[in-house]
Amino acid sequence: MRLEDLGEFPLIARLTNGLETRADVALGVGDDAAALDLGNGQLLLATCDAQVEGMHFLPSIATPEEIGHKALAVNLSDIAAMGGEPCWALVSLLAPPTLEVAVLDGIYTGMRALARHFDVALVGGNVAATPGPLTLDITLLGRTTRARLLTRGGARPGDRLLVTGRLGAAVMALLTYTGAPPVGDESTETDEAVREALSQARQAMVTPEPRVLEGRALAATGVVTAMLDISDGLAGDLGHLCERSGVGAIVDLAALPVDAATRTLAEARGDDPLRIALSGGDDYELLFTVRPDGVAQALDAARTAGGVASVIGEMTAPEQGLRLREPDGALHPLEPRGWDHLRRRDDRDDERL
Amino acid sequence: MRLEDLGEFPLIARLTNGLETRADVALGVGDDAAALDLGNGQLLLATCDAQVEGMHFLPSIATPEEIGHKALAVNLSDIAAMGGEPCWALVSLLAPPTLEVAVLDGIYTGMRALARHFDVALVGGNVAATPGPLTLDITLLGRTTRARLLTRGGARPGDRLLVTGRLGAAVMALLTYTGAPPVGDESTETDEAVREALSQARQAMVTPEPRVLEGRALAATGVVTAMLDISDGLAGDLGHLCERSGVGAIVDLAALPVDAATRTLAEARGDDPLRIALSGGDDYELLFTVRPDGVAQALDAARTAGGVASVIGEMTAPEQGLRLREPDGALHPLEPRGWDHLRRRDDRDDERL
Repeated sequence: MRLEDLGEFPLIARLTNGLETRADVALGVGDDAAALDLGNGQLLLATCDAQVEGMHFLPSIATPEEIGHKALAVNLSDIAAMGGEPCWALVSLLAPPTLEVAVLDGIYTGMRALARHFDVALVGGNVAATPGPLTLDITLLGRTTRARLLTRGGARPGDRLLVTGRLGAAVMALLTYTGAPPVGDESTETDEAVREALSQARQAMVTPEPRVLEGRALAATGVVTAMLDISDGLAGDLGHLCERSGVGAIVDLAALPVDAATRTLAEARGDDPLRIALSGGDDYELLFTVRPDGVAQALDAARTAGGVASVIGEMTAPEQGLRLREPDGALHPLEPRGWDHLRRRDDRDDERL
Repeated sequence: MRLEDLGEFPLIARLTNGLETRADVALGVGDDAAALDLGNGQLLLATCDAQVEGMHFLPSIATPEEIGHKALAVNLSDIAAMGGEPCWALVSLLAPPTLEVAVLDGIYTGMRALARHFDVALVGGNVAATPGPLTLDITLLGRTTRARLLTRGGARPGDRLLVTGRLGAAVMALLTYTGAPPVGDESTETDEAVREALSQARQAMVTPEPRVLEGRALAATGVVTAMLDISDGLAGDLGHLCERSGVGAIVDLAALPVDAATRTLAEARGDDPLRIALSGGDDYELLFTVRPDGVAQALDAARTAGGVASVIGEMTAPEQGLRLREPDGALHPLEPRGWDHLRRRDDRDDERL
């Protein structure tokens, strides 16, 4: 059997089955980051994520600076999802020896600018030659306390479901770049609107803004019960949260936050922007659950941190599973399918939209 | 300019020039691991190292279990070189979707067995698809204290130079596998001896034993002034230690510890086993300096930890540079050249022997 037949999550379950642990491992495999007990209620957070040329970034679309930004941003998003403070990064570089040094100069410029913004120090790493594609594999370490740790596992029936920011722009940009061009060469009013929308959506795709400040502010409220970041699509990541928490959920389709650029691009392609927001990917927003009496406090915390959050549903008993409430009020089962990094492309396209 | 024109160490210097830091970074880029201040004299150690199929391991020589062992071992060696206790590992897997799951089963079996041996917990990681070669990128976290931290930077003139274990076996195995076979097909007495030697040297190459216990025992003595592990060859890694410490060194060629298998293989190829020991690579032994009055204590600590150490030279004033004392007593300059992961192959062969 090949990896593409098994799929990402069954593979991880298989490889980590019965995994050895230590008394100081507060949280191991299966969340956005591991949490390691440093004593006195202090926790170390650790996560890693790789970006592979041609799979996670395309040099024809993203500049080296943007590639460097995103490689760190996706890791910052994981620390944000735990409610932690990002501190130290290790950068493992797998590069073809024929690569131009100027490309790495640009990548490091983008990465260092984002690190500086969040007061993260690059403290080490590795350089290895590869005949394969350029790959940036970053490990990010952060800190939090036992009292503030947010995991995927604390949601309860009745909790409200919220999300930061807006959804769907990154996947709309990707679909627009990789699909048939939605408009011709003639310059019409529609063309102009689509071009402007693509420029905005492209920014969301190549330089996602990790919700570090929002994550810490939300963790400080005490009303958030579970959190994770959306990297593989809202529906799939919500499935992970529900599984870990042992709950079900209802998502209000009409409540999904979608910006104007995403709407414009989706309509130009004949896609439903709300369904794009539901099952897209690469959003790097925080999806979290809040005690029923804490919604105002959570919304306020996100706002004070400079962001925005929206209520998009609520948690239910586990036997009710994942459901979608259509704009007309009808309830349908929601498949918790998101991006699988290993499945064959034909399966993936099917899952994605 | 391409990476292969610049080379590994100038590239790292260029990318990390003027790197931002934080007050809690005790030791950043440039040692075997970063050291991060956790407060109360406690330090977190962090290192990462990647193994790329075809570059660092060959499935035609190493079994999946051995590949998994080595991927973790090279990282354990870095924590050992700081005198630290290895604790937690993150495994980033870059795999072609067409890879057989059974290969990863074997790799994880080897990795988990070694982790168990040193009480290391695998606490996270990442799986990403790549069209390139199978790559295992491991980040290992460890702990030590400020009082026990050993870096590359503490050697002083007059200190003795020591090394654990034996040198040269791994590179002899590699040269024997990749070069012309040293013996014909007929079964002679020499053939038998070479075959037996290759079997032993192969083991050193595919399952290096990281000197974790020796490293911790040496750090506890208080007489060790600087330490690093030998991954790129003794001469090259000694060059790093001298540069960081601001000292010179004399290496006694005749004192280099070489085992019988390495001698047999070297002689079968017409190589000088001592020069192989000097400039080989992939040894994963600890190279360290000791106060002149502390040699007996250091040798004893290595022995008590189940290992062995040898005195192979001494440190000098920096202006005397790196020198080699030939078996006849003559002193020659020693080029601090080791393995460069990015240089073109023709340069490398030149550097290696």
